[in-house]
Amino acid sequence: MSDIQAQAQPDAQRPSILVVSAHAADFVWRAGGAIALYAERGYNVKIVCLSFGERGESAKMWRQPGMTIERVKAARHEEAQQAADILGATLECFDLGDYPMRVTDAALLRLADLYRALRPELVLSHSREDIYNFDHPLATHVAQEARVIAQAHGYKPEVPVIGAPPVFLFEPHQPEQCNWKPDVLLDISSVWEKKQRAFATMAAQEHLWEYYTRVALQRGAQAARNSDRKVQYAEGYARVFPQVAQSLS
Amino acid sequence: MSDIQAQAQPDAQRPSILVVSAHAADFVWRAGGAIALYAERGYNVKIVCLSFGERGESAKMWRQPGMTIERVKAARHEEAQQAADILGATLECFDLGDYPMRVTDAALLRLADLYRALRPELVLSHSREDIYNFDHPLATHVAQEARVIAQAHGYKPEVPVIGAPPVFLFEPHQPEQCNWKPDVLLDISSVWEKKQRAFATMAAQEHLWEYYTRVALQRGAQAARNSDRKVQYAEGYARVFPQVAQSLS
Amino acid sequence: MSDIQAQAQPDAQRPSILVVSAHAADFVWRAGGAIALYAERGYNVKIVCLSFGERGESAKMWRQPGMTIERVKAARHEEAQQAADILGATLECFDLGDYPMRVTDAALLRLADLYRALRPELVLSHSREDIYNFDHPLATHVAQEARVIAQAHGYKPEVPVIGAPPVFLFEPHQPEQCNWKPDVLLDISSVWEKKQRAFATMAAQEHLWEYYTRVALQRGAQAARNSDRKVQYAEGYARVFPQVAQSLS
Amino acid sequence: MSDIQAQAQPDAQRPSILVVSAHAADFVWRAGGAIALYAERGYNVKIVCLSFGERGESAKMWRQPGMTIERVKAARHEEAQQAADILGATLECFDLGDYPMRVTDAALLRLADLYRALRPELVLSHSREDIYNFDHPLATHVAQEARVIAQAHGYKPEVPVIGAPPVFLFEPHQPEQCNWKPDVLLDISSVWEKKQRAFATMAAQEHLWEYYTRVALQRGAQAARNSDRKVQYAEGYARVFPQVAQSLS
Amino acid sequence: MSDIQAQAQPDAQRPSILVVSAHAADFVWRAGGAIALYAERGYNVKIVCLSFGERGESAKMWRQPGMTIERVKAARHEEAQQAADILGATLECFDLGDYPMRVTDAALLRLADLYRALRPELVLSHSREDIYNFDHPLATHVAQEARVIAQAHGYKPEVPVIGAPPVFLFEPHQPEQCNWKPDVLLDISSVWEKKQRAFATMAAQEHLWEYYTRVALQRGAQAARNSDRKVQYAEGYARVFPQVAQSLS
Amino acid sequence: MSDIQAQAQPDAQRPSILVVSAHAADFVWRAGGAIALYAERGYNVKIVCLSFGERGESAKMWRQPGMTIERVKAARHEEAQQAADILGATLECFDLGDYPMRVTDAALLRLADLYRALRPELVLSHSREDIYNFDHPLATHVAQEARVIAQAHGYKPEVPVIGAPPVFLFEPHQPEQCNWKPDVLLDISSVWEKKQRAFATMAAQEHLWEYYTRVALQRGAQAARNSDRKVQYAEGYARVFPQVAQSLS
Repeated sequence: MSDIQAQAQPDAQRPSILVVSAHAADFVWRAGGAIALYAERGYNVKIVCLSFGERGESAKMWRQPGMTIERVKAARHEEAQQAADILGATLECFDLGDYPMRVTDAALLRLADLYRALRPELVLSHSREDIYNFDHPLATHVAQEARVIAQAHGYKPEVPVIGAPPVFLFEPHQPEQCNWKPDVLLDISSVWEKKQRAFATMAAQEHLWEYYTRVALQRGAQAARNSDRKVQYAEGYARVFPQVAQSLS
Repeated sequence: MSDIQAQAQPDAQRPSILVVSAHAADFVWRAGGAIALYAERGYNVKIVCLSFGERGESAKMWRQPGMTIERVKAARHEEAQQAADILGATLECFDLGDYPMRVTDAALLRLADLYRALRPELVLSHSREDIYNFDHPLATHVAQEARVIAQAHGYKPEVPVIGAPPVFLFEPHQPEQCNWKPDVLLDISSVWEKKQRAFATMAAQEHLWEYYTRVALQRGAQAARNSDRKVQYAEGYARVFPQVAQSLS
Repeated sequence: MSDIQAQAQPDAQRPSILVVSAHAADFVWRAGGAIALYAERGYNVKIVCLSFGERGESAKMWRQPGMTIERVKAARHEEAQQAADILGATLECFDLGDYPMRVTDAALLRLADLYRALRPELVLSHSREDIYNFDHPLATHVAQEARVIAQAHGYKPEVPVIGAPPVFLFEPHQPEQCNWKPDVLLDISSVWEKKQRAFATMAAQEHLWEYYTRVALQRGAQAARNSDRKVQYAEGYARVFPQVAQSLS
Repeated sequence: MSDIQAQAQPDAQRPSILVVSAHAADFVWRAGGAIALYAERGYNVKIVCLSFGERGESAKMWRQPGMTIERVKAARHEEAQQAADILGATLECFDLGDYPMRVTDAALLRLADLYRALRPELVLSHSREDIYNFDHPLATHVAQEARVIAQAHGYKPEVPVIGAPPVFLFEPHQPEQCNWKPDVLLDISSVWEKKQRAFATMAAQEHLWEYYTRVALQRGAQAARNSDRKVQYAEGYARVFPQVAQSLS
Repeated sequence: MSDIQAQAQPDAQRPSILVVSAHAADFVWRAGGAIALYAERGYNVKIVCLSFGERGESAKMWRQPGMTIERVKAARHEEAQQAADILGATLECFDLGDYPMRVTDAALLRLADLYRALRPELVLSHSREDIYNFDHPLATHVAQEARVIAQAHGYKPEVPVIGAPPVFLFEPHQPEQCNWKPDVLLDISSVWEKKQRAFATMAAQEHLWEYYTRVALQRGAQAARNSDRKVQYAEGYARVFPQVAQSLS
Repeated sequence: MSDIQAQAQPDAQRPSILVVSAHAADFVWRAGGAIALYAERGYNVKIVCLSFGERGESAKMWRQPGMTIERVKAARHEEAQQAADILGATLECFDLGDYPMRVTDAALLRLADLYRALRPELVLSHSREDIYNFDHPLATHVAQEARVIAQAHGYKPEVPVIGAPPVFLFEPHQPEQCNWKPDVLLDISSVWEKKQRAFATMAAQEHLWEYYTRVALQRGAQAARNSDRKVQYAEGYARVFPQVAQSLS
């Protein structure tokens, strides 16, 4: 089935992936390439933003006089939606607050239910440690805990359990300080232009455009060196689980 | 091209993999499944045994009166050749001695030259640490150092350099004590019967047959649990380099 | 005093050990040997099951039509009681729920009080990490936090504080993925038959019988290799605290 | 400006450092030298004690008949105040309880507000792990989480955010068991006498005086060996963030 | 004394630093900023290149027909000398060969003697691990072993021993894969232009110019984020020894 | 059999332990307690000093005018012999040189032969890492490699192989910097006076007497805290292999 045909199908019949992002923009910088790649292949890519990053990642807006939390949230939501549209993904916002993010069991189970509804083939989320941002490890913990709940036969026994989708952890801002290490370098050269356009919707964080362009170029150069193939742009991912494979590659 | 056609081709035109084994039997217990799998797919699988394990891994033979080192080496060579035949691989023995193994620069460069001749798509060797056996980390070090030399344009500049074949480290006898962790669980169910037959050639190490059968069953059960697929037998491998990929799986 | 005499004594006068298990069956697979061994030696072995594993570890029961959470809990309780009886231990169930388990401060203090009442010579619980099951690390955290509270002179000052019983962490299902490493290999050959009979009470988890039999055989083989003694079955434990000793062994 | 002049200034105009201590005495044993050093240099050193250590670290008092939690807290508060006075610091007690300590979001934000008010140049707190005391890792987590909240433009947007003060983790009682490693050895020889006097206010923990005197001497000897300078007493600190520097030293 | 005055002094009276580089160009990419910074401050910066990187890091030259090892070495030497001149350092080449590098005890002691002659205030070398290049870890091992020998009173007892200069490990090409983590981010903005000019002498490795420019920008952005100061270009260094300090910063 | 009877027996009939020390004094500071303890219990404790520490650990002697390497070695030998006598052990010096130590295969096999002759119940040596002293990790490597050779049936097949004696690594001077962690705290209170007397033979290293007295007191205090027993002096040891046990303690 061609990509265009795949995209024309109703979501329920398309394979899917799930991206769990702590703040509204995280998924763009860190996983925009994987999202665009899978969307182009006909996947239903669902992005969950646990918060809008309204307090901690909207410095520019807060410098405007008379700014309110509701206006920031609305603007961040709007930006995230535009970025998701460009990348070809759907967006769901949990609005749990940030700095500090707090995840109730209700939110956790809402995410578990989403796993059951989507049955994703793979899951993307944050690194397990981040000394610069405590919402990030919480988001990845929640993403993984909800996955395990969705595997439990006794949780909502009337809904079929999910299997064991692999989880990939995207690159934090300062990888060595977060004890994050790339296990996979994903070639995103073919969708780089989309990722770059998605950057541009994040008006409040212009200084990060160049930073993450350089990240993509460095990971691309490393991918080339680790494979002897031509790769210009790449995204790094750490694996949570061992890969189960028919081949070594 | 079918597997049978592939196997009928001269070695030089077939894709290849390289296995660097410290002692004559290591490749059987630890990588026999991968070897058989790739051999069946038409690959030229070259096994290098740096030593015969004549001193350290032939206890049973040494209990026979009047045993000599030459007889042990010959018997171990014979067994290893039979195992390689069963698995579909070719065998090359460097006869460097064991307990302790010592690798000269000449042997290192012989291995580098083999890399150049074979141009393997992937490389298998031992774990980086092994508190039970110092020949194992040395073998993997040599396998990796020779690979880097074979990449150097100034080493025998008249022979084309190799690319960057990934290196996979097979499971040591006591994995946790060697700080080895499986990054890949390779499904070897389809070739299990061959691996088991190769075990049987190792007459001197019967006690290991059951041990490594259980290893394969445990890794199989884990592979099933990490993938929700049916896997009965598996081999675990640790990656040295990040995987360069077009997909996350 | 003989083992039989010891067992005839009232619990309060016998030495004791405490096992903190997240779900009803965990203690059987992972610590059944140690439990039987200490019970045979006259110890009062108290097993605390924080939950019944009713949601997450009872897949088989949930496949029966019309199953309810109460019926699953009752059946799991029954099984766990039978297993405890076979092993010679007493069972106390906290019924805190699973997937996700949530531990209130009341439950934590109940466990601290149990430490004070039992004054265990040693404590067994789960590994500190488990990417497959978030109830496990929580259980071990609670076991350790309660231990520290029971050491505090100002917590219920009228009840004598406990000393510093060592804590041993039993083997998780996929040890390398949980960064668990055996510091002690405990010879359980003499009680293996009891552990195996305890397995049989876990009707819902037949597939694990063979898995954990192989674990015991592998750890037995490793124990033999690390000691030059004959050991057929063993259980691995990681230490939390350094061993204080009069000898090195 | 001389030290004496600096100390005469109102707090708001002096540079400051923040020390987050789980229990009333922790700051004395572990950071008393750094506190005295910075106080002598004219810094406003603010010590936050999250609890008094009333339950877990006041064994001696609890041995007195008829002791009450309020009397223990008052005595510990008094001691901590005296120690702070000797060291030249100000003390603020959050009275959150200990064994187990529980930190509400209100307490977390109170600490974030203190960061905003103080704008500390550096922050001292506990190690990230402590298998002997779960209040310690909680205290350092709270110290770091509050720091990140105080950096967020949208948290109380009317109050200026703080920059990125480095965080240093002081030495736990059993450093190797807590995976703590000294990145910095701070020469405290010039203020040792003050630290020792502060020890003496901790009447309930006499056995620790000698212990921490030896710690200071060992770290001093190590400082000398790592620098070829004469250092008699030192305190060790682990860094959380990379040092940003104009020189390597 | 002004920088210009300092540079006018004979080497023996100037403070010095020692840089131990495996191949001719390594010091430029990895430590060019620190070298230029210290040279501008009047330090005698001595660079030791253990080899010219003639086999492994001169791919471009080897593509020219009729190339010989001597011509490559001469060209690499020439480039390295030019780069050292631009950065303000002196260069000493040990010509030990590369891929594989082999360090004799004579070479080790030559380096120890250089430590004695220079008495460097600090030492820069490679990361302890590098899965892409085994000459790098060897170079840093030799740099550290020679330093310890130079500290030994019984080695050439007639020459005064050195103290304990700190050792800083510069950033490898793929830092996470080498388990390297920046402990210090050194602001090199003021000398960036010199480092960039030194890049340009490395005609054979043009593809690395951009790569290491991006490295410097990323480390600069991280330095800014970790300090709230304006830093445009930085170099990362890992510490080998704990810092001995009068202040925490 | 009483200790006195045991000591009266010929060495060959007594159980033994083997201590492999890089330099002449290392065994005193680091393992003197264990040595004295086992000697008192009737063990034949054999200490191998690979070198005399003549260059690197004899600073005081080298300050005397006209000192020669032979005189230093003789004096160090004399001291080590006296210390061994006090502790009740026998001493064997390999005289391999220090700073840098170099171990030939002949020396390695000499040690393997000693393993065969002694058949030690346990082995003590240095930590695996030591950034301050490269002879230490080499000594422990050699101790472990020789042990594995002595286990090999084909090495001198006419001499019976040894079993699998556990190896314990004694505490380095700066434990955290060497990634060493005590797995066992051995109570040496009963032999402390002997260890202290052995210190006194090390006239050239007076500054270490106090240092290692404090180490013993700190480890003693920690032993008490980890066991609730009264321990005044202790030595810490890291295990290389998992403990094989009949009990958990």
